[in-house]
Amino acid sequence: MFVSKSAGVNDKNHLTFAGLDVVELAKEYQTPLYLMDENLIRENCRLYRTSIEKYYDGNGLVLYASKAFSSLAIYRIVMEEGLGVDVVSGGELFTAISAGFPAEKIYFHGNNKTEQELVYALESGVGRIVVDNLTELSMLNSLAKTMGKTADILFRIKPGIDAHTHDFIMTGQIDSKFGVALETGEAFDIIKTASTLENVHVVGLHCHIGSQIFDLAPFEEAAKVMLTFIAKIKNELGITITELNLGGGFGIQYVESDTPIAYDKYMESVSGVVKETCKALGLALPKILLEPGRSIVASAGLTAYTVGNVKNIPDVRTYVSVDGGMADNPRYILYQAEYDFEIANKIGDEKSETVTVAGRCCESGDLLGENVHLQKAEAGDILAVFSTGAYQYSMASHYNRLPNPAVLMIKDGKERVVIKRESYEDLIKNDLY
Amino acid sequence: MFVSKSAGVNDKNHLTFAGLDVVELAKEYQTPLYLMDENLIRENCRLYRTSIEKYYDGNGLVLYASKAFSSLAIYRIVMEEGLGVDVVSGGELFTAISAGFPAEKIYFHGNNKTEQELVYALESGVGRIVVDNLTELSMLNSLAKTMGKTADILFRIKPGIDAHTHDFIMTGQIDSKFGVALETGEAFDIIKTASTLENVHVVGLHCHIGSQIFDLAPFEEAAKVMLTFIAKIKNELGITITELNLGGGFGIQYVESDTPIAYDKYMESVSGVVKETCKALGLALPKILLEPGRSIVASAGLTAYTVGNVKNIPDVRTYVSVDGGMADNPRYILYQAEYDFEIANKIGDEKSETVTVAGRCCESGDLLGENVHLQKAEAGDILAVFSTGAYQYSMASHYNRLPNPAVLMIKDGKERVVIKRESYEDLIKNDLY
Repeated sequence: MFVSKSAGVNDKNHLTFAGLDVVELAKEYQTPLYLMDENLIRENCRLYRTSIEKYYDGNGLVLYASKAFSSLAIYRIVMEEGLGVDVVSGGELFTAISAGFPAEKIYFHGNNKTEQELVYALESGVGRIVVDNLTELSMLNSLAKTMGKTADILFRIKPGIDAHTHDFIMTGQIDSKFGVALETGEAFDIIKTASTLENVHVVGLHCHIGSQIFDLAPFEEAAKVMLTFIAKIKNELGITITELNLGGGFGIQYVESDTPIAYDKYMESVSGVVKETCKALGLALPKILLEPGRSIVASAGLTAYTVGNVKNIPDVRTYVSVDGGMADNPRYILYQAEYDFEIANKIGDEKSETVTVAGRCCESGDLLGENVHLQKAEAGDILAVFSTGAYQYSMASHYNRLPNPAVLMIKDGKERVVIKRESYEDLIKNDLY
Repeated sequence: MFVSKSAGVNDKNHLTFAGLDVVELAKEYQTPLYLMDENLIRENCRLYRTSIEKYYDGNGLVLYASKAFSSLAIYRIVMEEGLGVDVVSGGELFTAISAGFPAEKIYFHGNNKTEQELVYALESGVGRIVVDNLTELSMLNSLAKTMGKTADILFRIKPGIDAHTHDFIMTGQIDSKFGVALETGEAFDIIKTASTLENVHVVGLHCHIGSQIFDLAPFEEAAKVMLTFIAKIKNELGITITELNLGGGFGIQYVESDTPIAYDKYMESVSGVVKETCKALGLALPKILLEPGRSIVASAGLTAYTVGNVKNIPDVRTYVSVDGGMADNPRYILYQAEYDFEIANKIGDEKSETVTVAGRCCESGDLLGENVHLQKAEAGDILAVFSTGAYQYSMASHYNRLPNPAVLMIKDGKERVVIKRESYEDLIKNDLY
């Protein structure tokens, strides 16, 4: 019935999430309110982690892609589940380290890391730096030298795979701001250059082929392409690559028509291909890394809003306006992303209406959904939006000076605040005249 | 030569802004960095204010639409220039009041004000509440009653004007989440209802016909339509409307092809139409309100970035990556908004390259511009983006945990920090476990 397995219905005919009454939580903690199901987050972590143990003898590491949702609490949870993390900025690194995350399990990504960030990463002793380009390689080597360190690095490679067509293509995928291209020789050249530098140590290769992928084949293709390249590096440069990071992009269910693959299937299928290909190429099995972000947290999240007014414009449409919008969920205005909606206090009612859910920002594009099937809405109703655990809080703005909502984490039927609602005072904390 | 009149070139061949060397400011205050020219902001305020004095006997008020850029400093500046403000949330109201803005010159807008916000507005004694819909009207009246107050209100009207075609249209413009429609009778009905309520006092009408308008005619049309409606209300309901708020939407120059109208021309042309129409309809001249936001601050702003790397992909394109992006300027990823770019330290060089300016977020859509004509870029260059005074800081997010940049205000050749750069510690200030 619901796109999230955390959802249910109680005897008051209210929507429940992680076992708790969404209407009651909304009243107690105010809206907009982000809810997260810690048990489901942990279950997702375990599904990935055990798939590496089961299908690949544990020779790998799952890295939570923390740009999906970064906070002290989530790093702590992910750490307890034995995962590593990938971070893409000094701010994410700071948050992970502040949460006590072991630096050696942190992978530092980014197409444009600053000098200060590289220094911070080296000082912190992060496990790996995923180098994007030649300018960065050279800067990193020289900073590491000054600091008397050697950085273990991966390279971000554009493998030329289109995740949605499965083609290995010669153009298109090389048109990216990220990484170095395989097919132009750029990737080969940068590794050759790195091998001459004293303060970097080439450990692995990374690729990321897309987002919201509902198919196994592109990951298998990517593994084959990358392993073939690893063999070439070994044969032509004598460099042994011991880590293959296949990135993320594992699809999740936002609406009924999305058909995600069970998260353990990725490793099941990829490990088969990796073993086969390595055997054929005479390679030792590399350590495999996966970087799920959205698929760890998205379905474990729900946003609760209060309906403020319902505007029925005859022969045009009905606007249901809520007390949040693009400031706490910019994915509709950015990508026209689809979501599933329910009125939490009318969960047993038929979805008899087709409406537009509008946000409260002074911007006509501030909508959360169009052609939304919904129970009949009235002012005061609690509107629930599913699958909002990823790319919501992490992308939130203060547009119209709206404070960021609170985040509640629910574990074993008990909720706690893991991010306090911002106050108006917070908004001007750095203001001067 | 430049789209902003605050820009210039000094003898080091560096870009200047408000008379100061952009390269030196970038080095001293770090990047990304927002610069604002206080003198130009004040000049823009005065152009609007004096146009009301000159063309309409001072019978009006200019309201700065603070969603464009809201901070303690800007409210103070606008206040000193004798303007009022419009605010669209409790957070903007809080900021304005904290800056010492006189409450009676604050207009409170929004399609979905919450009960707490209406209470806050009434407690603060804001000058006007611009009522959006019947649910709000009823809630406001009842809150005002409880508090023993009477609220002076305007109504947000959909006048049915398409600013870009000049048509008075029967559909389309009524398809908006904002306000009540004129042509369906909804606007008439809500005013009739309001006239029966004891704790609201109908003072005026508001309309807003669009954004980035480069034409006078739609404002004249809107004035005519609204005055005709005011006459109808007077004749049929016996209610005298004394304030006509024509909203904002005055176009500014982002790129060379934008052709803005001098800001005093709006009032010049509108006042003629208002006087004529009132005479024909037998109406007393209403107080006129205008709500410029973007046109007060956009051109008075510039963003400075540092170039991190330049990626030339043969036969595809060249990516110039900077140390900011969609987190500090989401307008490209949201609307593919165009900007003018310069390399501040190479301002005398020919713009010989066509490049894509990419942000640093882990998101392929994080670009700031495509097909950008630019001087030849290298790592370490300071890239300047013009016309970023509006909808940048106010729409900024922490995506990828990037701290919000600092805002420098420059007045008479001297800069000061009006918003401090966020620290990493700021990012976790509300985090718990």
